[in-house]
Amino acid sequence: MAVVLEFNNRGETFMAYVDIVTVLALLQFIVFGMQVGRARGKYGVQAPAVTGNEIFERHFRVQQNTLEQLIVFLPGLYLFAHYFNPLWGAGLGVIYLIGRQVYSASYVKDPKTRSAGFGLTFLPTVVLIVGALIGAAIHLAKS
Amino acid sequence: MAVVLEFNNRGETFMAYVDIVTVLALLQFIVFGMQVGRARGKYGVQAPAVTGNEIFERHFRVQQNTLEQLIVFLPGLYLFAHYFNPLWGAGLGVIYLIGRQVYSASYVKDPKTRSAGFGLTFLPTVVLIVGALIGAAIHLAKS
Amino acid sequence: MAVVLEFNNRGETFMAYVDIVTVLALLQFIVFGMQVGRARGKYGVQAPAVTGNEIFERHFRVQQNTLEQLIVFLPGLYLFAHYFNPLWGAGLGVIYLIGRQVYSASYVKDPKTRSAGFGLTFLPTVVLIVGALIGAAIHLAKS
Repeated sequence: MAVVLEFNNRGETFMAYVDIVTVLALLQFIVFGMQVGRARGKYGVQAPAVTGNEIFERHFRVQQNTLEQLIVFLPGLYLFAHYFNPLWGAGLGVIYLIGRQVYSASYVKDPKTRSAGFGLTFLPTVVLIVGALIGAAIHLAKS
Repeated sequence: MAVVLEFNNRGETFMAYVDIVTVLALLQFIVFGMQVGRARGKYGVQAPAVTGNEIFERHFRVQQNTLEQLIVFLPGLYLFAHYFNPLWGAGLGVIYLIGRQVYSASYVKDPKTRSAGFGLTFLPTVVLIVGALIGAAIHLAKS
Repeated sequence: MAVVLEFNNRGETFMAYVDIVTVLALLQFIVFGMQVGRARGKYGVQAPAVTGNEIFERHFRVQQNTLEQLIVFLPGLYLFAHYFNPLWGAGLGVIYLIGRQVYSASYVKDPKTRSAGFGLTFLPTVVLIVGALIGAAIHLAKS
């Protein structure tokens, strides 16, 4: 922990890395959304329906699950960067980004194989929010 | 209003309480997600399907509705903390957390009884964002 | 770009406009959610079901798609305001707000006509996050 805390507060410049990871995660989510739109056309699933074709549903679930991950990942990323270190946060974010690509590819091919990619996004996210919780608690204990 | 504004800007340390409430709300959401996963196995709802078993669908709707609440609650919490007071914001956040637990338990038991828990999360959230709106308007009027 | 960058850092007061746009976007989302609730009663779609009536499903999809937009729009708005200019960010946010109203009205009337309103929210959002990416990259290049 001491090592992590030492790195703290070099902050401002390194925050740009955190912001870049955020934008990349949002662009990735937009691409997943475009793949849902394309699958809608390709497999003839007319809005407002979101069921009726298995491949469409896989693309749709990838996008929806990514939305569920983002609402945890983004606050976790900024709180971790604030209490510990922006660079380490950005690094965990890169693992998240790779994990989501693996998740998307494996889910669309075969939903049964989605666990590895899910874990690769879920675990860094848990590290971010648990790290943030510990950081906030240390901050209160010191004040 | 004056009393609330007076409290303003003790801020930095008290923000840690806001951050802790945020992490707790995210952990609560993760637990709801795990309950969806468990229900998927228990009631034999194979991905990518999200329908087919009533109890699974209840767990799924609890998680999805919580996602809809979080996207309003989190920005509202930080804006309210910024314009008014972090401690009051964190206190409203604790009501939100309790409300969500009530919502989850009652929805899974019987969806018709979900109103009380829903209100207990919806009302503090509305106070947060309306408070933020008033705070931002006061800020502009003074500048 | 130079003109935009010049405007930078007048910031603090103008951030209140960004915050007001945020609250308006959240209130708009809440109204969409209320319309889903009303459609649930009107067309007899009992929770936890989210299918079974075409008009209900249109309202539900408007709300869900708005959730998907918000998770990108809100971080994009604040990052753009940070790296470029809060007023320009707020202005793009107003286009987003109008676009969502058009999207909602047209989707409920006829899902096939939803493209214009979708574009009016999607395009300002893309400008915000791509602007943020460029701003963060410039910041790193200068540091």
